[in-house]
Amino acid sequence: MREMRRKDRSIGTEDCREILKRGEYGILSTSDEDNNPHGTPLSYVFDGDSIWFHSAIEGHTRSNIEANPRASFLVIGRTEVLPEKFSTIYESVILKGRVEICSGTDKKKGLMLLTEKYCPEMMVRGSQYADEASERVTVYRFAIENMTGKARYNH
Amino acid sequence: MREMRRKDRSIGTEDCREILKRGEYGILSTSDEDNNPHGTPLSYVFDGDSIWFHSAIEGHTRSNIEANPRASFLVIGRTEVLPEKFSTIYESVILKGRVEICSGTDKKKGLMLLTEKYCPEMMVRGSQYADEASERVTVYRFAIENMTGKARYNH
Repeated sequence: MREMRRKDRSIGTEDCREILKRGEYGILSTSDEDNNPHGTPLSYVFDGDSIWFHSAIEGHTRSNIEANPRASFLVIGRTEVLPEKFSTIYESVILKGRVEICSGTDKKKGLMLLTEKYCPEMMVRGSQYADEASERVTVYRFAIENMTGKARYNH
Repeated sequence: MREMRRKDRSIGTEDCREILKRGEYGILSTSDEDNNPHGTPLSYVFDGDSIWFHSAIEGHTRSNIEANPRASFLVIGRTEVLPEKFSTIYESVILKGRVEICSGTDKKKGLMLLTEKYCPEMMVRGSQYADEASERVTVYRFAIENMTGKARYNH
């Protein structure tokens, strides 16, 4: 891994996990077999260990993951522009890892975790939704190999 | 270019340009010489033709661009979770293109455009800032080769 350049702006593991837990969406960066990078915004859930998300059965995300499972996942927390400082406040977490396509009980687990995060009051219908959606979507688990948090709060 | 899967969710050129103009930050996806993807949130400006941004003189962004100038740039507009629909409202623009490292008058142009967007009331000091910052930063121009907008507003 490349070392972080500005260590004074790194944030600790617990803060990173908090940003991952409360993030509304993340950005998956993948690349295809010709090394063309691609960024996709995705709803996701962090279960304390891995990142789970889903996409269509066919499409850009799935074909890139099949070509190259290495990916990065970015979650951006609070941001604010500070014009008089020529600067911005921000916090972000960048993950490096590998993405696997889920099947069977893992696929159901991913869909239930997503329902629990985004639709917590709908868990009964959520289970039924997960069963129905399972046919129509690809579910992925992003195994985190490296986590780096960056923040800039003061100037 | 891969065709967009859900054409019913594509948005027109003018809407894309509007999202690019008003976006607070974008995410640059690059990959290194070993085809490891990386996503970085960046302040940027869209001048109606190209995307301009800057980074440190040395670092991840610059070394990846030097290894592979192909990149994608993502700007996310409005998002909202709709729990009862198991869905989200969103709008996003994804650009494909090549990134070049700017020098000379182009470098100054990029820094002035960034100042104009983020610090519009500081343009006098902004010019001085651009001269001072020029030594400390790398300025990039992202030449847009392809633009795709996606949105989901109704269910």
